[in-house]
Amino acid sequence: VFEVKWDVEAAEKGGYQHFMLKEINEQPKAVRDTLAGRLPDGSDVKLDDIKLSADDINKINKIFIVACGTAYHAGLVGKNLIERLAKIPVEADIASEFRYRDPLVDEHSLTIVISQSGETADTLAAMREAKKKGSRILAVTNVVGSSVAREADDVLYTWAGPEIAVASTKAYTTQLVSMYLLAIKLGLERGTITEDYAEMLKSELRQLSEKIQKILDNQDTVQKLADNNYTAKDVFFLGRGLDYSVSMEGSLKLKEISYIHSEAYAAGELKHGTLALIENGTLVIALVTQKHLYDKMLSNIKEVTTRGAHVIAVALESMREIEKAVDDVIYIPDCAEEVAPVLAVIPLQLLAYYMAVARGCDVDKPRNLAKSVTVE
Amino acid sequence: VFEVKWDVEAAEKGGYQHFMLKEINEQPKAVRDTLAGRLPDGSDVKLDDIKLSADDINKINKIFIVACGTAYHAGLVGKNLIERLAKIPVEADIASEFRYRDPLVDEHSLTIVISQSGETADTLAAMREAKKKGSRILAVTNVVGSSVAREADDVLYTWAGPEIAVASTKAYTTQLVSMYLLAIKLGLERGTITEDYAEMLKSELRQLSEKIQKILDNQDTVQKLADNNYTAKDVFFLGRGLDYSVSMEGSLKLKEISYIHSEAYAAGELKHGTLALIENGTLVIALVTQKHLYDKMLSNIKEVTTRGAHVIAVALESMREIEKAVDDVIYIPDCAEEVAPVLAVIPLQLLAYYMAVARGCDVDKPRNLAKSVTVE
Repeated sequence: VFEVKWDVEAAEKGGYQHFMLKEINEQPKAVRDTLAGRLPDGSDVKLDDIKLSADDINKINKIFIVACGTAYHAGLVGKNLIERLAKIPVEADIASEFRYRDPLVDEHSLTIVISQSGETADTLAAMREAKKKGSRILAVTNVVGSSVAREADDVLYTWAGPEIAVASTKAYTTQLVSMYLLAIKLGLERGTITEDYAEMLKSELRQLSEKIQKILDNQDTVQKLADNNYTAKDVFFLGRGLDYSVSMEGSLKLKEISYIHSEAYAAGELKHGTLALIENGTLVIALVTQKHLYDKMLSNIKEVTTRGAHVIAVALESMREIEKAVDDVIYIPDCAEEVAPVLAVIPLQLLAYYMAVARGCDVDKPRNLAKSVTVE
Repeated sequence: VFEVKWDVEAAEKGGYQHFMLKEINEQPKAVRDTLAGRLPDGSDVKLDDIKLSADDINKINKIFIVACGTAYHAGLVGKNLIERLAKIPVEADIASEFRYRDPLVDEHSLTIVISQSGETADTLAAMREAKKKGSRILAVTNVVGSSVAREADDVLYTWAGPEIAVASTKAYTTQLVSMYLLAIKLGLERGTITEDYAEMLKSELRQLSEKIQKILDNQDTVQKLADNNYTAKDVFFLGRGLDYSVSMEGSLKLKEISYIHSEAYAAGELKHGTLALIENGTLVIALVTQKHLYDKMLSNIKEVTTRGAHVIAVALESMREIEKAVDDVIYIPDCAEEVAPVLAVIPLQLLAYYMAVARGCDVDKPRNLAKSVTVE
């Protein structure tokens, strides 16, 4: 019986050594499926399951994005994007904090809850709390008919397909894509972005799937870096703006499956404490995808290399000059800086995966963790 | 010449081995001085340097609290308190992030900047950015005539006295106290708290200085725990609500001066990743000062003790039953949960100090760090 089970599992892995690696490699399809039918030509975003009228949208004066873990990290990108495009103040909050802090939610609030399984206990409780306060609820989830989907006013499904590995990968990237769809939709409805700008972003979104594939085709490079660095005791992820949000997800991925103590910092905060932890050989992963923050990141990178840190940068292809400042670079295809998180996270997922494999960890079922946290 | 300098320094240390220890022990006076004259009998808070009229206060529809490092952690407590008491939405942000993200600040915003030195480069730049967008600026600073004080519309001085050690202690507690003063002031002006409630909080504030002294009188206990645990490689701080904000400050203190990789978590997030890092003997500091979150914290503590963590709790004196759930407890005097951060941080400062001393670190001048970060 055990052997049969194993065969089925192996078959489901489609030739990959782990579900996590399979799911990382499914991201071009997951992103394409999540965008399918939602980006028609012309200045529109089609989100059929969302019944928010133009009038509803104009009445919203505050958005809360509430989630746990990886989904919360997608929410942080959502906050940045929605504020930037729709000019509505957004607060991203951890569900287990939100539900107990009596947040200032009212009938003019929109609460967006993000949960892959749609059953995350704290997220569900937070959603009910927001609803009780009169907020409209929009759920972003991967599971049709899940509790979150049933109880929300509107649902935006991610079409990632079943995610088996405990460490979330394709659910995260499709959650990110959902944030872009929502931000463009809200921006267009409120007239806070031009049609040209929306068209540019839509075009960038349509190219993501192919660009992710390019990064995946090059995963040997990441694997080599993982093999050279897997014995690291502490790893620090640095970024600014959207790169900071992605850093948090990269750090979580690494710690979940490799048990390396990693931490993400807003790069500008280094001098206010963390720099003390940097010593000769400390591994630092620096995200450099935001052109308007390039010079600032470069000086943060110098702060750590001066103290002997070993720095791997994740940067855009066109930023070749970064090579002079760091030890290694993982390039991602050029893109608009708004959508860079969807690409930048891919090498971080791969790095976490290959480092964990090199350490002999049980990648798909890390110790102490469950796939869906349905208890509090 | 060297000897003379040393003598002067030693004299300034007033018999303490380090400036940091001296400054930790000055906190009863620093808190008392910061409250002096500002808490008259009756339902009022006197903040003479703040010219905000009742009308100005009622027009504010959003508050931004912007700061770096330790001051940012004070801002997180400020967010909680101001939202709770004055029902104004507050966003606490890291200055180096705020200044580059084009935040939704306008003429109905109040921006509170917090900086001990009043010269922190990113905070200053963030302040100017907010001003340009039409926001009124309120500065909380320890240095009269500093740049931040000169350029702000209103100033609330902390009266901590000169802080020499790089790791901030008494500046932080007086920044916290300033947050309470502001929150009560705003709550009273907007009529969102009752006079009785304000009176209760004022009475709690008046008792803080004496209660801090009680904790300091008992610092041998903390020193013993530090001596037993100073070889820790990784330390995790856990808390919920206000305890989460204090956890972040406790973690920063420890990493700044002891170079131990410590990290703070919202306790509810444990199951979403961090739990993977907990193994036999991992040191966890759990903050348990919020009665309404007691049961939730207790189950988070069980999650880590089940995996073999060594847990030190910081709890209220009346929570004796916590002893059954953890390895060690540091008690702080009972108090209203709103003001608990001012007390809970004291043992964390002491723990960081004594662990760093036991490790032979240069406590007053940690590697790589400067006292005031006046460059970007």
